[in-house]
Amino acid sequence: MDGIGDVFLADCPARLAVEVIADKWAVVVLWGLSEGPRRHGELVALIGGISKKVLTQTLRRLQTNGLVTRTEYGGVPPRVDYDLTPLGKTLMEPIRLLTTWAADNGEAVLAAQESA
Amino acid sequence: MDGIGDVFLADCPARLAVEVIADKWAVVVLWGLSEGPRRHGELVALIGGISKKVLTQTLRRLQTNGLVTRTEYGGVPPRVDYDLTPLGKTLMEPIRLLTTWAADNGEAVLAAQESA
Repeated sequence: MDGIGDVFLADCPARLAVEVIADKWAVVVLWGLSEGPRRHGELVALIGGISKKVLTQTLRRLQTNGLVTRTEYGGVPPRVDYDLTPLGKTLMEPIRLLTTWAADNGEAVLAAQESA
Repeated sequence: MDGIGDVFLADCPARLAVEVIADKWAVVVLWGLSEGPRRHGELVALIGGISKKVLTQTLRRLQTNGLVTRTEYGGVPPRVDYDLTPLGKTLMEPIRLLTTWAADNGEAVLAAQESA
């Protein structure tokens, strides 16, 4: 079986990887890091509708899954940056296509919902 | 603002579109239709770990959002096919990249989880 088919297997790491990224906030937060490291407050300001708590949970989950780093710097108050890992960076092209699709087709999805 | 940035806006159709497809089962079911129409039972057999009920719910949601059609044919028992709409077909390239990423990087995500 080629690699692409693996997402059809329940116990395959490929399915696990789909689960990690097939999450609304994961997609938007990863995309929010596409241009470089950001602080928590910067991400809250960038991402409309996300609460501080949900952002914290999403970042933790992305860290646990090896996609995001959390770096503490000294200073008062201490500065903390979030950034993509090399693995996280490999997701940028798929996510770019997905967010572009969403921007281009959001109106069509909305129209379908309204006529359903 | 260019189209891509719209996913950062809470009330934008682009965000809605991300929500529709940022779902584990939506991704896998859409990918299961990538090679042409399938019956419900064929999709259950193809997609490891999905229950009939979850598949039915996922297909209904994809129909409501204009991504999938449900076509009934005559016959005993009646035959019902699910297929991608033209809008659903525009999602195949982003989903191909995503599932390829998952197949290529699932092991790395699993390793990160295990060392976290």
